[in-house]
Amino acid sequence: MTQYSYLVGLVGTDIGHSLSPQLHEYEADRHGVRYLYRLLDTGAKPAGGHDLHELLRSCRDCGFSGLNVTHPFKRLVMPHLDELAPTALRVGAVNTVVFTPDRRAVGHNTDLAGFSESFARGLPDARLDRVVLLGAGGAGAAVAHALLDRGARHLQVVDPLQERAVALAEALNEHSGQERARAVSPEALEVVLSEADGLVNASPAGSVHHPRLPLAARLLHPRLWLADLNYRPLHTPLLRAGGALGSRVLHGGGMLVHQAAHSFRLLTGLPAHTSHMLADFADLTADPHAHA
Amino acid sequence: MTQYSYLVGLVGTDIGHSLSPQLHEYEADRHGVRYLYRLLDTGAKPAGGHDLHELLRSCRDCGFSGLNVTHPFKRLVMPHLDELAPTALRVGAVNTVVFTPDRRAVGHNTDLAGFSESFARGLPDARLDRVVLLGAGGAGAAVAHALLDRGARHLQVVDPLQERAVALAEALNEHSGQERARAVSPEALEVVLSEADGLVNASPAGSVHHPRLPLAARLLHPRLWLADLNYRPLHTPLLRAGGALGSRVLHGGGMLVHQAAHSFRLLTGLPAHTSHMLADFADLTADPHAHA
Repeated sequence: MTQYSYLVGLVGTDIGHSLSPQLHEYEADRHGVRYLYRLLDTGAKPAGGHDLHELLRSCRDCGFSGLNVTHPFKRLVMPHLDELAPTALRVGAVNTVVFTPDRRAVGHNTDLAGFSESFARGLPDARLDRVVLLGAGGAGAAVAHALLDRGARHLQVVDPLQERAVALAEALNEHSGQERARAVSPEALEVVLSEADGLVNASPAGSVHHPRLPLAARLLHPRLWLADLNYRPLHTPLLRAGGALGSRVLHGGGMLVHQAAHSFRLLTGLPAHTSHMLADFADLTADPHAHA
Repeated sequence: MTQYSYLVGLVGTDIGHSLSPQLHEYEADRHGVRYLYRLLDTGAKPAGGHDLHELLRSCRDCGFSGLNVTHPFKRLVMPHLDELAPTALRVGAVNTVVFTPDRRAVGHNTDLAGFSESFARGLPDARLDRVVLLGAGGAGAAVAHALLDRGARHLQVVDPLQERAVALAEALNEHSGQERARAVSPEALEVVLSEADGLVNASPAGSVHHPRLPLAARLLHPRLWLADLNYRPLHTPLLRAGGALGSRVLHGGGMLVHQAAHSFRLLTGLPAHTSHMLADFADLTADPHAHA
């Protein structure tokens, strides 16, 4: 069955300011296909496992082509799906669900490729000998796998939930067959950062909802490249502080756009033009007062 | 809250060939608003009262702006709504559900106005002294009220379910405060038609699924104007037979378009341009081989 139109939703909490609707819809407009992207914010509701199951079923019954899934559901959604694509299985997190014509829900992860491509574009020759990752949630796991794929030799994973960092490091080592990842406690950050080449912030610290540095400013140094997954604001407290020191920085917009492009391809079967989507993102986040 | 896009569904059985998606979407395109209209065909499922309730809740939870409702749910949907607009209450049937910002489901009936406007346009000076109505379901009830509003003096209602015809006649007389409507048995059709000015077919006989005359051909006569609510095919067996005798005929496309225009206004708050929608309908139903 050829679909003549596409209906997609984003499931998450506090997603009112997401730019995914525009990124998907504007790309669809360029292809001349009807596309509607709905925000399904569970913010008000206690979206536990049961509610999530209901919501997935509702979307399928109401003719959705698929869903994007974001915080805090990237892992929680997995038991409710009929099938997992290899990358989703590997990362242990899902950010895209495709409903097949025979009504199965298939989970994919496009965050891994999204971060990898954004990194290749924004920090092409960054050293990857020693990298520190803050945040071992769904997005952090995707970033960790991407960093190993890009050749990171030592990856230190820090999370306030220590067992989550340990589990991620174990999964990474099992996948690579090497001891390249290690969980470190937040107290050890000062030591590991002093020797690190780069830092990726996959924690929510720095978003509009948590407008703060994810670590003490005195731990930053100019040899450290910095990547932040938060993109609202684009220039997070971390990137501002690092930039002021002379660090090379990568904002979260690139990963957002690249993962969206991959999702769009999975949901429609159409080729997404990332360069156009990056331009849309730049337009959408341009400071309206910049030329005032 | 201003909506920047609209998501609407049609709930019914065997609706795969409905033209409502195009009528709504093309009109929205002229207004420059994003609009997606999904067919929610319950054909495969046993959509009893409980399933209908679930489907309504699912659509509301999944960000639908509202729904159109068609056979066989125009009456069945009513107990599942939070509020009924006056015309829906009067007709006893709902073809449009609007989800309000505070998440209430409000039922409307735009079939009444849709038939009335189509009739005024297509058969402007038709005699309404004695009119026969075939079919006392949800659409038939809307037509009956529209005919009384337009001045029909004697309305004879025929339905294979006699009690449904009786109930509709009683409701019409209660509303008008006059004895203008009467239920007649199918066996009495020959007598009442011989004296009638016009006949409206609100039964499914004549649609692609039931491609037959709704009554014996010998009962037709040239003094009888004919209106059919079926529009697929546009020229139903009834209209063909009547047209061959010289009867004036009105196909179901006009009512479809006019009710859609009213639904569009309720769902969006935007003015629908009926003339453009009628042109769309003509394009959509044009015989592709006509100019071959």
